[in-house]
Amino acid sequence: MNILAFGEAMLRFTVADKMMLEQNNHLTVSTVGTGVNLLSSLSHFGYDTALLTVLPNNPIGKMAASDLRKLGISDKKLIFDGRSMGSFFVELGHGPRPERVTYQDRLSSSFCEFNVNGYNFEKALAGVDVVHICGIALSLTKNTREAALALAKQAHENDKVVCFDFNYRVSLNEENSHEVMKKRYQEMLQYTDIVFGSRRDLTDLLDYPKSDDQELFQQFCKDYQISFFAGSKRLFKDDKKYFEGFIYHSGKIYESAPRDLNILDRIGSGDAFASGVLTGLFEKWDFEDTLKFAIANSVLAQASMNDSPIFTEEDVFNYIDSQGNNDLIR
Amino acid sequence: MNILAFGEAMLRFTVADKMMLEQNNHLTVSTVGTGVNLLSSLSHFGYDTALLTVLPNNPIGKMAASDLRKLGISDKKLIFDGRSMGSFFVELGHGPRPERVTYQDRLSSSFCEFNVNGYNFEKALAGVDVVHICGIALSLTKNTREAALALAKQAHENDKVVCFDFNYRVSLNEENSHEVMKKRYQEMLQYTDIVFGSRRDLTDLLDYPKSDDQELFQQFCKDYQISFFAGSKRLFKDDKKYFEGFIYHSGKIYESAPRDLNILDRIGSGDAFASGVLTGLFEKWDFEDTLKFAIANSVLAQASMNDSPIFTEEDVFNYIDSQGNNDLIR
Amino acid sequence: MNILAFGEAMLRFTVADKMMLEQNNHLTVSTVGTGVNLLSSLSHFGYDTALLTVLPNNPIGKMAASDLRKLGISDKKLIFDGRSMGSFFVELGHGPRPERVTYQDRLSSSFCEFNVNGYNFEKALAGVDVVHICGIALSLTKNTREAALALAKQAHENDKVVCFDFNYRVSLNEENSHEVMKKRYQEMLQYTDIVFGSRRDLTDLLDYPKSDDQELFQQFCKDYQISFFAGSKRLFKDDKKYFEGFIYHSGKIYESAPRDLNILDRIGSGDAFASGVLTGLFEKWDFEDTLKFAIANSVLAQASMNDSPIFTEEDVFNYIDSQGNNDLIR
Amino acid sequence: MNILAFGEAMLRFTVADKMMLEQNNHLTVSTVGTGVNLLSSLSHFGYDTALLTVLPNNPIGKMAASDLRKLGISDKKLIFDGRSMGSFFVELGHGPRPERVTYQDRLSSSFCEFNVNGYNFEKALAGVDVVHICGIALSLTKNTREAALALAKQAHENDKVVCFDFNYRVSLNEENSHEVMKKRYQEMLQYTDIVFGSRRDLTDLLDYPKSDDQELFQQFCKDYQISFFAGSKRLFKDDKKYFEGFIYHSGKIYESAPRDLNILDRIGSGDAFASGVLTGLFEKWDFEDTLKFAIANSVLAQASMNDSPIFTEEDVFNYIDSQGNNDLIR
Amino acid sequence: MNILAFGEAMLRFTVADKMMLEQNNHLTVSTVGTGVNLLSSLSHFGYDTALLTVLPNNPIGKMAASDLRKLGISDKKLIFDGRSMGSFFVELGHGPRPERVTYQDRLSSSFCEFNVNGYNFEKALAGVDVVHICGIALSLTKNTREAALALAKQAHENDKVVCFDFNYRVSLNEENSHEVMKKRYQEMLQYTDIVFGSRRDLTDLLDYPKSDDQELFQQFCKDYQISFFAGSKRLFKDDKKYFEGFIYHSGKIYESAPRDLNILDRIGSGDAFASGVLTGLFEKWDFEDTLKFAIANSVLAQASMNDSPIFTEEDVFNYIDSQGNNDLIR
Amino acid sequence: MNILAFGEAMLRFTVADKMMLEQNNHLTVSTVGTGVNLLSSLSHFGYDTALLTVLPNNPIGKMAASDLRKLGISDKKLIFDGRSMGSFFVELGHGPRPERVTYQDRLSSSFCEFNVNGYNFEKALAGVDVVHICGIALSLTKNTREAALALAKQAHENDKVVCFDFNYRVSLNEENSHEVMKKRYQEMLQYTDIVFGSRRDLTDLLDYPKSDDQELFQQFCKDYQISFFAGSKRLFKDDKKYFEGFIYHSGKIYESAPRDLNILDRIGSGDAFASGVLTGLFEKWDFEDTLKFAIANSVLAQASMNDSPIFTEEDVFNYIDSQGNNDLIR
Repeated sequence: MNILAFGEAMLRFTVADKMMLEQNNHLTVSTVGTGVNLLSSLSHFGYDTALLTVLPNNPIGKMAASDLRKLGISDKKLIFDGRSMGSFFVELGHGPRPERVTYQDRLSSSFCEFNVNGYNFEKALAGVDVVHICGIALSLTKNTREAALALAKQAHENDKVVCFDFNYRVSLNEENSHEVMKKRYQEMLQYTDIVFGSRRDLTDLLDYPKSDDQELFQQFCKDYQISFFAGSKRLFKDDKKYFEGFIYHSGKIYESAPRDLNILDRIGSGDAFASGVLTGLFEKWDFEDTLKFAIANSVLAQASMNDSPIFTEEDVFNYIDSQGNNDLIR
Repeated sequence: MNILAFGEAMLRFTVADKMMLEQNNHLTVSTVGTGVNLLSSLSHFGYDTALLTVLPNNPIGKMAASDLRKLGISDKKLIFDGRSMGSFFVELGHGPRPERVTYQDRLSSSFCEFNVNGYNFEKALAGVDVVHICGIALSLTKNTREAALALAKQAHENDKVVCFDFNYRVSLNEENSHEVMKKRYQEMLQYTDIVFGSRRDLTDLLDYPKSDDQELFQQFCKDYQISFFAGSKRLFKDDKKYFEGFIYHSGKIYESAPRDLNILDRIGSGDAFASGVLTGLFEKWDFEDTLKFAIANSVLAQASMNDSPIFTEEDVFNYIDSQGNNDLIR
Repeated sequence: MNILAFGEAMLRFTVADKMMLEQNNHLTVSTVGTGVNLLSSLSHFGYDTALLTVLPNNPIGKMAASDLRKLGISDKKLIFDGRSMGSFFVELGHGPRPERVTYQDRLSSSFCEFNVNGYNFEKALAGVDVVHICGIALSLTKNTREAALALAKQAHENDKVVCFDFNYRVSLNEENSHEVMKKRYQEMLQYTDIVFGSRRDLTDLLDYPKSDDQELFQQFCKDYQISFFAGSKRLFKDDKKYFEGFIYHSGKIYESAPRDLNILDRIGSGDAFASGVLTGLFEKWDFEDTLKFAIANSVLAQASMNDSPIFTEEDVFNYIDSQGNNDLIR
Repeated sequence: MNILAFGEAMLRFTVADKMMLEQNNHLTVSTVGTGVNLLSSLSHFGYDTALLTVLPNNPIGKMAASDLRKLGISDKKLIFDGRSMGSFFVELGHGPRPERVTYQDRLSSSFCEFNVNGYNFEKALAGVDVVHICGIALSLTKNTREAALALAKQAHENDKVVCFDFNYRVSLNEENSHEVMKKRYQEMLQYTDIVFGSRRDLTDLLDYPKSDDQELFQQFCKDYQISFFAGSKRLFKDDKKYFEGFIYHSGKIYESAPRDLNILDRIGSGDAFASGVLTGLFEKWDFEDTLKFAIANSVLAQASMNDSPIFTEEDVFNYIDSQGNNDLIR
Repeated sequence: MNILAFGEAMLRFTVADKMMLEQNNHLTVSTVGTGVNLLSSLSHFGYDTALLTVLPNNPIGKMAASDLRKLGISDKKLIFDGRSMGSFFVELGHGPRPERVTYQDRLSSSFCEFNVNGYNFEKALAGVDVVHICGIALSLTKNTREAALALAKQAHENDKVVCFDFNYRVSLNEENSHEVMKKRYQEMLQYTDIVFGSRRDLTDLLDYPKSDDQELFQQFCKDYQISFFAGSKRLFKDDKKYFEGFIYHSGKIYESAPRDLNILDRIGSGDAFASGVLTGLFEKWDFEDTLKFAIANSVLAQASMNDSPIFTEEDVFNYIDSQGNNDLIR
Repeated sequence: MNILAFGEAMLRFTVADKMMLEQNNHLTVSTVGTGVNLLSSLSHFGYDTALLTVLPNNPIGKMAASDLRKLGISDKKLIFDGRSMGSFFVELGHGPRPERVTYQDRLSSSFCEFNVNGYNFEKALAGVDVVHICGIALSLTKNTREAALALAKQAHENDKVVCFDFNYRVSLNEENSHEVMKKRYQEMLQYTDIVFGSRRDLTDLLDYPKSDDQELFQQFCKDYQISFFAGSKRLFKDDKKYFEGFIYHSGKIYESAPRDLNILDRIGSGDAFASGVLTGLFEKWDFEDTLKFAIANSVLAQASMNDSPIFTEEDVFNYIDSQGNNDLIR
């Protein structure tokens, strides 16, 4: 299985030692993003992966490329152009103190400024079975929106499986009207086979009526001929935190049991879930096992530093088998 | 609002990576103390703050001054003299293993050896609305005791609001008799308007009878014409830890609900509470909101590294609004 | 009391900042092993300790020796020969993510390749009251097996107290038949006075019938004239983890209450328990106090970084007295 | 003496341990820039300093403000608006391997996007004796150019001393024509009293004829009624590196002796020189002493980590007195 | 150009902060070796590279593979088997204090224990233009010797360019007779086209008469039909250190000028030279330029941390063009 | 050979990464002092060593004791009492920027406050061949002066070899008159056999006439029946730094050749020289070899981090044999 992801790679600066920015000027930098996180996890599950993005043509872009390779993601489809990457700072949380993410400007990045005509999608799709597109590209710039849609269309026409993650962020769309964003998503969705999102994406962004999940998901998947619709969410009950997910397929909603969370670094939890779901679909596991696997992958990812999951299937199965009660592997 | 605090600034050496002193020779140093912690927090709530203390006239004192500035505390009222600062080592705890604090000698510090005549209290009080005095000065040396009392007296006479924190530590007074210490505190209290302390301070140090809180606090505040008496404490119930506080004012005790603790670094919890209370009093919030705010500030501070809280009002309100259940701020 | 331990000292490489090996190339190295851990703890309880092992005759061995001295273990009985130490990597866990230990080859270490004839056991035993032998030596190489047995025999004949820890690891004995290993342990046990192990060691390795503990331990101790048989284990109940232990002596099983665990670094929990038990036996405390002490030492050790416990008796008693509820020692 | 500097504050990410970006993801972040560096040094020489710039209105901007305060720079004139800071990465060099600086996009920073009308220059100039303007503002955006010129004009009209640093960077002006840039600089120069730059700035940017320095500087200073023109440069001779500088005043060029360099971190050498020159001018030292002081400050700064010099006058005089041969101060 | 290297990948543990092993237990780990270093450099010069080696089938091997990918080396030809990697410790030097390397046992590594029959050389050679073999394989174990010779033979027969690096280490051959080692090298050399070594390798290992270089190299290359013979060496003159190299080709010796060294970390200097020479040969540069490039690459590598050079052609040419006098690249 | 040293052990806080105190709050702490440094070096040369000092009876003192053991110094003669250790901060230098040492108060340390009657000198001297006393004890407090003199007297009377190091520091004696200090040193010297100091100690402190060295040393040694008088010093010539030393014995001055310095951390250079001289005297090497060895030990120590030399004889001889030109030991 050969997976290509399209989307922005960003620099993440994490303040060391669980401190806040004003407390500590020691950082670690890593290269992250929805596509990066997803491919990192899929690569550790044994698939061939490559990222289609634009990195700066300088030592920063070289570093990012070396990070991607380290995660197991091929650098063969990277484009080097421009001079900047979007970036954000992470201050890790502890108990009642939440993890905090602060973004720098991301619209002047190499990725956001690269013209759609610069891509060679035919070459990028050669040998690829599955294409994953992160919805954030629909919010960023004209360049990224056009590229995402062009790629999705071409992949769809070439009979590639097209996955799409809503990843809708209100904060990124303060200047885009609801109607504009709705239309962009609608255009994208007609090319997609597997979609990650939430009930709220359908009702609030696409204006579906607030019927029950069954009816809602069924109508959505029918409208866009989507085979699989999946999503995860977090619960708070009796001062404890849980994580759970669902897959809708062919008229039926499958739901996972909720699993306890013990968070070290929360970012990327949805990407870890998505890569688990994709693995189950690729391997044709039944939906229950797939959800168990996807939730486990995400619970482990949230108990680990950094966005990009690097667990093997064996790691995830060990967790499932031990009910999360194993505290030492020798 | 312009606040001046008087008290010792100490060097805190924290062993890295949650290790103990014998395990790790990597430390971080920070400049702390009741006055420092309180002003750091008040400065982040938007007030003008300055510390009146004596720092060594060498690179150590310069570093401490730069630390204070970084926390938002003015260095304009600092005195540079002598060559030493008191210091202590912190070994962070984990679960059943308690955090451990070990003091070096603090009586030969620049602050402790500086003569009361060296201060220019009139100049120090210029433009100041509120003066905060840490009670530890009453235990250290003749110099610090005289300076604390002289400053309190002069501030009181100039109609400044005088805050005082008992901060009574048995370990610092092994060589001072109960009567001597009682008398010093009594002298100080006559100049004060807002006092931080505990029931035990009144009964054990000032020899009040062990009546109920209402009666006890009423008598105490009446005796010394104190407007506000406030304090915090920690509870253990069913293997869980909680933090709560009270404010006594004008015949009535207001009490907070207890909030769960998840401790990363406990030191300074009382100072975080005190700065929250002062903020509520400055802003004339009702007592319930004030206590909620003060407890929240302290719970966040205990979930953070280092003594000196650096939360903004927005940070504290976010915590209150989310019931502490938010684990990511984007 | 003068204790000599015999066994392998290994290099432990711990990945920094709770990360996994692929995430972080910053490590800390420490010198550990059953004998090292046990003696470190006993040394901090005030006993004279020395390790009998073979370290490389190069800067690596010198570093290991300096680590041992730092832990309070005498380097007077160390032998320097060869060039390698066994090593393993530790990736710390967090909540659902288990701590993970990965061993490098350990059979070509200086310890494993050193011939039994190279030891001067008579000299090593001079002045020693108690000898501790780690059972792993029976699994490693012919050299280590012969040395362990020769030392045990000679110590026994010279009326030293001989302690032995089963420490049986299936993973180390994939190439040794059950019968071979059983015979080796049987030979060793005839020289021993105090034995650490588990019910499973008796039934699975020594083929005792699976009767109840009382009968089983009684038979085992009778067969080999063992005075004390002790062990610890971990429990999972209602999503919480506990630690508990037992001592069998003279027909009676004494059992500790279970204590909550909050794990920072689990490795060495059994060694911390064993050193606590030995201390109780040396000091002739009653068994209840001994178990309380041993469990407390291990609970603290598991809440600390690294294998080798460095708690003093005062530290352990503080924990016992506070019920583990103390979160700050000043 | 009260100095206000206007210019961009940037985030500097320095790769740890003299490694390159691909080798190490551990960074330290600091807040730097021509104005920051200059004021840091002047503040350590005892002057009151404040920076007029725009920082993001989020935790990144708060961190930058705390860095500035730590350096001794007042945060009273900072404006918080927008969400980004310009940034660059530094890979330190070693011997033949040069230090390498890579910029991210800086045109979308809070500073670059802030409209000139948002400033209150009158308030900013209150109480100020000297204004320093960094020429980079002329190259960045319309906003920064307009603000720089408006401030210079107003300061000039209010009889403040106006200092200006050419800081002309070809790489920042790939899209601006020579004529456009020349005109901008000419406009600025008519408001200035003290100018830092080089011979090349005059001949290449301002199109002065390539006459000898004396004639060139004289004409330049006459044309714009400039009192002091100063600059520094580095020399390579016999495999060794030297640093030297000049001041032109009233028809005469004063030149320093060259001093040996031993570089730890080169960035900011010109700012260290400039703050030394300004100090000499403020203190009315003779030009020889001023140059000796300025060169010494810069040589020390280049032997230190980070851009912002923090040497006191005593530190600089010690270096001068010892001829740089002192290797230990006790 | 597609290059395959065969050889051992080792773990390098570098003590942090220029300290010695007894002084600091903080290490960084990296994956190195002649093949790794060479391919890292060639990959950064733009070639496709892959390493043929055996890594442990566990998290250690996974980490090593991720390190290789990060360096730009393909992991497609890696074999995962066994459980260990050879390792060594590095204590960096400073001036008169030399850098010190201490090896652990390397004969029980996955690479050394992997049987020749486990390799599929045909598949490994598919698509490959050039094969590089490190001579250390001839000294380690029967397994590695057989694999190196079999690969060389097969590559030679398939008309691949075969490069070979003598890399003869006396310390690795204490148990192999001169005659045995000579025979092994003689067997290998008959398959080779490009050879890296020194005069001493020819005279001392292969027993060539000590004639002048011209005669010696000519005879050697004729005997084994070698196209290119190249090597580097270091000089000490007047308390300074220099680095220089040569290439022999077709009857002529080409020699570089010596370049100054300023060493940060010396290991891998020969590999950096070799990758520079190969690049010149691949690109058909003239020999003078090739040597200049190879020496520059090595001088830069010795001024950088770690074994594996990551300089681009642009980096190396910048150094050459600036005569090593550039101390800042913006 | 069994050596006992008497003197203060201090905490040294070294700022990380060659930064200054205002730049970096990351420190490493180590336990140092003349006695500590000397014994560390002698212990690494193979001698039995123990320190007689007073450490705090708390975790700080325990940490210091563990540091001493790590250096190879016995903790058997340590006294635990009081709560403080003297401390100083070190900011490492670079080229023209000198290393800077800033002391905190040291007069209230456990060592300085411990009464002479608390020592059991008889027990401390049991089994000891050589006693080393650091002259700083004569400057600190009445307690330390009395203890130093009492120990020297008793050792002398028991025919131990008594070594003494002048270590006279003007800064420590601002409140002691010349006459008082002279008398103290005179008293001490009558018990000594081997003395470390400088020409200036004799002329300025002891008021010897400024005759030539030969006459001066002869008179001094005769007056106090001193067998060996030795010292080291640093030279600056042509911008380079050198280190050299001398031994006076029985009418003759032996002088070393000067050796180049390349300083990483200068502190402790005299102690490294002294331990080298003592080793030569213990081993009865000729004076030339002894001086070569002592200078080499000190040159290596100055090229290493921290005060306490940990070089073996082999390390020192390697340096001597390679003329300091070896840059890699494998």
